[in-house]
Amino acid sequence: MVREVVELDGHIIDSLILAKVLDLILAAGADYQVVDVEIGRTNVDSSRARLEITAPDDAVLSSLLEELQVHGANRLDAADASTVTTDRDGVFPPDFYATTNLATAVRINGEWRDVENPEMDCALVVLDDGRVRTVPLHRVRAGSPVVVGRDGIRVHAPSRPRGRSPFEFMASEVSSEKPKGTLIAEVAGRIRTAKDTGGRVLAVCGPAVIHTGAGPDVARLVRGGWVDVLFAGNGFATHDLESAVLGTSLGVSLEGGPPVEGGHANHLRVINEIRRHGSIAAAVDAGYVAAGVMYECVRGRVPFVLGGSVRDDGPLPDVVSDVVEAADAMRAALPGVTVALMLASTLHAIATGNLMPAWVETYCVDINQAVVTKLADRGSHQALGLVTDVGLFLRGLADQLCP
Amino acid sequence: MVREVVELDGHIIDSLILAKVLDLILAAGADYQVVDVEIGRTNVDSSRARLEITAPDDAVLSSLLEELQVHGANRLDAADASTVTTDRDGVFPPDFYATTNLATAVRINGEWRDVENPEMDCALVVLDDGRVRTVPLHRVRAGSPVVVGRDGIRVHAPSRPRGRSPFEFMASEVSSEKPKGTLIAEVAGRIRTAKDTGGRVLAVCGPAVIHTGAGPDVARLVRGGWVDVLFAGNGFATHDLESAVLGTSLGVSLEGGPPVEGGHANHLRVINEIRRHGSIAAAVDAGYVAAGVMYECVRGRVPFVLGGSVRDDGPLPDVVSDVVEAADAMRAALPGVTVALMLASTLHAIATGNLMPAWVETYCVDINQAVVTKLADRGSHQALGLVTDVGLFLRGLADQLCP
Amino acid sequence: MVREVVELDGHIIDSLILAKVLDLILAAGADYQVVDVEIGRTNVDSSRARLEITAPDDAVLSSLLEELQVHGANRLDAADASTVTTDRDGVFPPDFYATTNLATAVRINGEWRDVENPEMDCALVVLDDGRVRTVPLHRVRAGSPVVVGRDGIRVHAPSRPRGRSPFEFMASEVSSEKPKGTLIAEVAGRIRTAKDTGGRVLAVCGPAVIHTGAGPDVARLVRGGWVDVLFAGNGFATHDLESAVLGTSLGVSLEGGPPVEGGHANHLRVINEIRRHGSIAAAVDAGYVAAGVMYECVRGRVPFVLGGSVRDDGPLPDVVSDVVEAADAMRAALPGVTVALMLASTLHAIATGNLMPAWVETYCVDINQAVVTKLADRGSHQALGLVTDVGLFLRGLADQLCP
Amino acid sequence: MVREVVELDGHIIDSLILAKVLDLILAAGADYQVVDVEIGRTNVDSSRARLEITAPDDAVLSSLLEELQVHGANRLDAADASTVTTDRDGVFPPDFYATTNLATAVRINGEWRDVENPEMDCALVVLDDGRVRTVPLHRVRAGSPVVVGRDGIRVHAPSRPRGRSPFEFMASEVSSEKPKGTLIAEVAGRIRTAKDTGGRVLAVCGPAVIHTGAGPDVARLVRGGWVDVLFAGNGFATHDLESAVLGTSLGVSLEGGPPVEGGHANHLRVINEIRRHGSIAAAVDAGYVAAGVMYECVRGRVPFVLGGSVRDDGPLPDVVSDVVEAADAMRAALPGVTVALMLASTLHAIATGNLMPAWVETYCVDINQAVVTKLADRGSHQALGLVTDVGLFLRGLADQLCP
Repeated sequence: MVREVVELDGHIIDSLILAKVLDLILAAGADYQVVDVEIGRTNVDSSRARLEITAPDDAVLSSLLEELQVHGANRLDAADASTVTTDRDGVFPPDFYATTNLATAVRINGEWRDVENPEMDCALVVLDDGRVRTVPLHRVRAGSPVVVGRDGIRVHAPSRPRGRSPFEFMASEVSSEKPKGTLIAEVAGRIRTAKDTGGRVLAVCGPAVIHTGAGPDVARLVRGGWVDVLFAGNGFATHDLESAVLGTSLGVSLEGGPPVEGGHANHLRVINEIRRHGSIAAAVDAGYVAAGVMYECVRGRVPFVLGGSVRDDGPLPDVVSDVVEAADAMRAALPGVTVALMLASTLHAIATGNLMPAWVETYCVDINQAVVTKLADRGSHQALGLVTDVGLFLRGLADQLCP
Repeated sequence: MVREVVELDGHIIDSLILAKVLDLILAAGADYQVVDVEIGRTNVDSSRARLEITAPDDAVLSSLLEELQVHGANRLDAADASTVTTDRDGVFPPDFYATTNLATAVRINGEWRDVENPEMDCALVVLDDGRVRTVPLHRVRAGSPVVVGRDGIRVHAPSRPRGRSPFEFMASEVSSEKPKGTLIAEVAGRIRTAKDTGGRVLAVCGPAVIHTGAGPDVARLVRGGWVDVLFAGNGFATHDLESAVLGTSLGVSLEGGPPVEGGHANHLRVINEIRRHGSIAAAVDAGYVAAGVMYECVRGRVPFVLGGSVRDDGPLPDVVSDVVEAADAMRAALPGVTVALMLASTLHAIATGNLMPAWVETYCVDINQAVVTKLADRGSHQALGLVTDVGLFLRGLADQLCP
Repeated sequence: MVREVVELDGHIIDSLILAKVLDLILAAGADYQVVDVEIGRTNVDSSRARLEITAPDDAVLSSLLEELQVHGANRLDAADASTVTTDRDGVFPPDFYATTNLATAVRINGEWRDVENPEMDCALVVLDDGRVRTVPLHRVRAGSPVVVGRDGIRVHAPSRPRGRSPFEFMASEVSSEKPKGTLIAEVAGRIRTAKDTGGRVLAVCGPAVIHTGAGPDVARLVRGGWVDVLFAGNGFATHDLESAVLGTSLGVSLEGGPPVEGGHANHLRVINEIRRHGSIAAAVDAGYVAAGVMYECVRGRVPFVLGGSVRDDGPLPDVVSDVVEAADAMRAALPGVTVALMLASTLHAIATGNLMPAWVETYCVDINQAVVTKLADRGSHQALGLVTDVGLFLRGLADQLCP
Repeated sequence: MVREVVELDGHIIDSLILAKVLDLILAAGADYQVVDVEIGRTNVDSSRARLEITAPDDAVLSSLLEELQVHGANRLDAADASTVTTDRDGVFPPDFYATTNLATAVRINGEWRDVENPEMDCALVVLDDGRVRTVPLHRVRAGSPVVVGRDGIRVHAPSRPRGRSPFEFMASEVSSEKPKGTLIAEVAGRIRTAKDTGGRVLAVCGPAVIHTGAGPDVARLVRGGWVDVLFAGNGFATHDLESAVLGTSLGVSLEGGPPVEGGHANHLRVINEIRRHGSIAAAVDAGYVAAGVMYECVRGRVPFVLGGSVRDDGPLPDVVSDVVEAADAMRAALPGVTVALMLASTLHAIATGNLMPAWVETYCVDINQAVVTKLADRGSHQALGLVTDVGLFLRGLADQLCP
C-alpha cells in the first residue's frame, strides 16, 4: 500500500470537483480518508479539502495522481519541478508532464511561475529567463528543458461563473426542449459583456451555417464588430463565396423560390476563380466577391484561419493545407479570446476546443444532440450546448446584437 | 408458375410508382414482362403500364398482388367484389381485404363505388344502399358484409402535386441543412391556399411545443383562425395550462430570466384544479385559465381531442383515457382536413397518420432526424419532413400568418 | 427576508446532492449559509450538512423547499404532518403534498411512518391504522385524509451503489463510443445478483426489439426465468405474434434471405385471429401461437401488461385500452421489481419510470442518443443509458444468461 | 424558348433515373416532351428514352443540362469535345467541364475514349496519346489541354446490381429497426464475392471502432486477408496503438473490469514513443507495438493512408499532415477497390466517397442516423447505410469471415 495526500481548493462542492475526485479514486481501485475539509460558508467563499489516498501500488497511484490533477487536485509537496533536455526535434522525454488546459503553475528554484499559455496535451518548456510555456509535440526542439514527472506542478481548478447566467445550465443541459428565445438573449448579453471587458469573440463555423441561410446573419455580426476572429474550413468559405457570387450554396438557391437543386459544380467554379485571383482578399479587391462572411472579414480586417481537411475540393488558396501549420495559425490567433461560438461545426470546433484554455466561455450550437453532447463534454469547463437549428439561432442572435 | 396481369396508371414514372412495383416483383422472387407501356408526353399527362407477372406459386403471387395494390397496381379483372358476413363483433372474416389509405373503388353489381372514407388497415363494409365504408377492427358488428379476397377492388395511385411547391422535396429531403426561412414561408403559403379552398387545418402538438416557448405562437395561430382542429395528449395540454396559470412548463419558467428549475409538481396542481372545475372549458369559463392554446380553442370553439397515454399524470378531465375511443374521436374530427401539422409529436402524429387518407398534405417538424424520417415515411404520400427547432419554426410561422 | 434551516444526510458529496442543492438555492434567487457540515471520512461513511436558507419572500422559500426536498433536503421541524379530508373523488385538496419517488417518512402522532409504496407525482393518504400510502390523482376517494403542506415529512436521498459496477457511469455516460461487450457482461451480472437476492426483473419492450430480430433472444430470457414481468404495447405484442405465426414483422421476413417487404396487412390478420380466439393465452392453448415472447410468457406464467395507445391497430384483446387502468395494472405488477430493462421503448419506458421507486436499477437501451438521454435523466436515480443496437445487445445478453 | 434533346439509357426506370431527370427539368423551370421511350421487357433488358427539353433561356438550359448529365442524360450531338490549354498551374480554364464519378467517355477526333479514372469534381485532361484522365484542381499544370463546354461528352448512368442482395435496400433504407444478423451475413457474402472476383476491399475507420472494442475484430479481418487497403486518421491509429501498447483507448480500459477513466495522456505518450521510433513500421519492427490493426497492416503489408486533420494531437509520424498530399495518397491507393466499408468515420468516409468512382459498393456503418443518411446520400450509387453499433457489427462480421 502506498499513500499520498492531495489538496483541492476553490468551488469544489458546487462545481462537482470534490465528487468527481472521490469517484476517480474509488474507480481506480484506490481508497481515501478525508484529512480535513473546510466548506465556504456562503456562495462566494471557496472551499478546501485534503484527502489521503491509499493505492495498492505505485503504478496505480501515479496514474491516479495524473488524473486527479486534471481536476485540480494537487499533491502537497515542496520540491521544484524537474526538467530533462530533449535530444531530438519533435519528441518529448519519455516521462514528460502532459498538460491540462487549466491555469497551471510550475515551481522553479523555489518560486511558482504561471504557465503563460495553457493548452491541453502539450508539454511544459522552461525558457532561459524562467518563464514556462506549453509546447505541442511537433514544435519542441532538441535542447529544450522539458518538465518531467509530477513534482512542483500545481493546477488550479476552474472557478465557476456565478449568478444569473446561462452557465447555470452547464454540462448536461443541452436539451432541444428548452425555449430558445431567452437563451439567445442570454448569449447575446454574454457577448456584449465580453466585448465591454476587452475580450475577443471567436466564431467557428461549419458549412451548415451557409446551407441553413445564416450566412447574411454571420456577415452582419462580422460587420457589426461582434466577431474578432473566425475559424472555418474550405467548405464554409467556399459555400459563403459561392452564395455571394452565384446566390447558391452547394448549387441550392438560398433566396426566394423553392430551394431547387442545380449547379453541382458551382462551388468548384468559384474556387477555380478565387485560385485565379490568388487569394480571397485579392478576389474581394478585384470586385469578384462583394458580399458574405469572408468579404466582411477581408473588409473589416478580421483575421481568419481556414484549416484544410482531406475532404476539401480545390482547395481555396487561403486554406492552410498542412494541418499542423493550420493548428499553429489557430494557436496564434487565440490569445485574448474569451468567448467562442461553435456553429454547426464538428471538426474545427473540436480542434479549437483542444487549443483553448479551459476558461473560455464556449457555446456549441448544433441540431444533432450527439454532436452537442460530444462538444460540450470537451475542452472547456464553461461550455453550454444548445440543440437547435443553427440558421434560426443566428438569425435571432444577429437581430439581438445588430438591431 | 402462375401468371397475372396488373395495370398501373397515373404519374407512375415521376412518382416512382413503376420503379417501386418492379422492385417489389423481383424482391418477392417473381418476375415480369412489360406487356405495354404508354408514357405521358408532358408533365401533366399521365402514364399507363401493364405488366405480366410470373410467380413460382399462388401463395407468392397472392401476397405480391396484395403489396402491389398498395402502390396502385390493380389486377385486370371483371368480377364483382365478394363479401362475407361477419359472425361476431370486433372480428373480420379471415380473408378480409385490408385497406390502404389511397382512393379506392369497389365493384358492386357491376358498378364501381368509391370508398367514402379511406383509412389504412381497416376492412371495407358494404352498406345496404350500396355505399362502401372503411371500418376499423374494433367497430365491426356481427352481420356486416365485409369485402374479402381481391376481386373487384381498384386502388388509385396518388397523383403528385406539381409546380413550385415544397413538395418537390418529398420523401428524403428532411435535412437539417436547409435554409428554413424560405421553407416556413412556403408552408405558410400552403396553409393559406388550403384555407382559401375550403380545407381545414389540423395541428398535432407534442409537449415540446410548450417547452420550447412556442405556446403563445400556437395560441396566436388558433386565435387567428389558422387551426381548425387540434390533437394532442395530456402532456401538451397540461404544460399549456400550467404555463397559462403559473407561467412555467414542467416547473421551468418560460419568460424573462434564466429558465430555472422549480415547481416540479406545478403541473400536478394545475391538473388537480382543472379536475375540480370538471373540464378545461369550465376552468376557462370560471376564469381560472385566461390564456394559452387550450384557452383559445375553448374561446374559438376549435374542437380538440386529447388522447390518453399510459404515461399521463392525472389526467386532465378532458383526456379520453380509453385509447380506442380516443382514436374514434380523432376519426370523427378528420373529415375536411387537407393540411396537417405534426409539431414535435411522435405518438399522436403516428396515430393521426394512421387515420388520415393519403392525400392530406402533412408537415412533420421535429429536431430529431430519426423521428422526422420515421414520420415522413408513413401514412401520407404528401409528407414533408423538416428537421428544425419547433419553437423557432412556430415563431416564424405565426409571424407569417398573423403579422 | 425569510429564513429556514434544512438538513441533508447520506452520500451528499459523491452523489452530487449537496452541489445540486446549493445550485437550486442560488437559481431560485435565494442564498445560503453553511451552518455545519460533516464529511464522511471514508467512502462508506455518510456525510451531513445543515444550511440556513435566506429567501426574499415566503412564496420563493416555499417553492424552493419543495424542490429541495426532491433531493433529500428536509426542514428541521418537530411538527406532525397535517391532513385534509378530500371532498370529492379524483381531486386532491389544493395544498396537497406532491410525492417524489424517494423513500419518504411521514410524522403521525409524533411517530415517523415510512411510506409504503413511493411513487412520483402522487399524494399521501393516511390509512385508519396509521399506515401511509401514495395514491395517484384518479384513485383518491372522497373522505380520504390527504397530507398537505410540508410539515412532518422527511425524504431520504438515495444512497449510491458502490464498488465495481456499471453504475460508476451513471448520469451522462450514455455514449455510443464505449465497448459494449464488457457492459453487457456487467448488466448480466447485475441481473444475476438481483435474482440471487430475491429481486424481480422487469422488461419493458418496444416494437424495435422484434424488428431488429431480437424476439427469440427475449423469448430465451423469458424461458430461462430471467424475466419476471413484462410491460409492452400493442405493437410489440403484435409483431412478436406476427413473427411467431407468419415469420414476419411488419411484413418483413426476420429469417434467412433478404429482409424483403411484403404482407403489409399481416399484423392485422394476426390481430384479427387472436381476437377470434379471445386472448393471447387462448390462442396459445389452441396452438395458433407456438413460439415467441408472448408464447413464453403464457407458458411460463410470466405476468404481462399491454398498455394501449392511440396509434394501436386492432388492438389485441389483451391490450388494456383504458390507459388509467393500464397504469394501475402496471402499478400492481411492480412490487418486488429491483431491475428494469427498458428496451427500445419510449412511451412505455417513460410510463414505467413514472411509476417506479427511485431505487430500481434501470438500464435504458436505445440506438438514439436523444431517447437514452431523456430516459436516463428521469425517474430513477440508478439509471444507466446504453446507446447501442437493441438487437445486438439482446443477443449478447441472452448468450450470457442462457448459454 | 430554347430546346435540346437528351437521351438516357440503361436501367432508367428501376434505378429511378428517369423520374429524377423529369423532376430536375420541372424544378429548373423548364418543361419536357417525351420524344420516344422504350421500356425493357424483362428485368435484365435496359430501357431508353429521349426527351425534348424546353427552357426559358440559354442560362437555364445550360445549367440544367449540366445537372442532367450527372444522372446520365446526354445531349444528342455529333461534335468532338473542345479543349482549352491551361495558362497556369492549379487553375482550370473558366468553362472547364466538371466531372461526375460515373463512367464517362469523351469524343476526340470522332472517336469515343473512356475516361480512365472517374472522380467527382475534377476536370478532364487529354493526354498526348489521346487518353483522357480526370485531374483535380490542385494538380493541373500549365499547358494541359482541359476539356471545356459540354460537347462530345457522354456519361453512363450506373446499372444497378440485381437479384438477392442487400442493395435492394439502397438509398433510404438505413433504419435502425432492421434485423442486423441477416444484413451482416449479406455484407460478408458481398465481401467474399468481391475477393473471389479479384476486387480489393477498403476499410475506412473512425476512432469509435477502437472505443467500442472492435479493434481486435478489425485486426482479425486484416490478418485474415479481408482488408486490402486502410484509410484512417491520426485518432484511429493512435487509439489502436494505445490499446496495443497500454491496453487503453483514450485512457479507457478496453478489457475486463469496468471501463474506468484514467491516463488521459496515454495516447500522447504512445505518439511520442512512435515519433521516437520514426514510424509505425519501425515501432513494430522494434517490438514496441505487437498487436492491433496497425500492427497487422505492417505485418501483412496492407497499405494504409493516415490523413491529417486540424484536431490531431502529435501527430503520428506516418500521418500525412498536408491534406492535399493525403488525398493524393488516397487516390493512388484506390484503383481496384470494389468494396468500401465506412466504419464510424465521418471525415475520412466523406473524403473517400469524393474520390471513388460511383460503382464501388459502399457500406456505411454508424450509430447516428443523421451521419448514415449523409454518407449514404453521397458519392456512391451503391451505398447501403446501416444504423447500428459499429462494435457489435464488426464482431459479427469478423465472426462470419474469420470463423
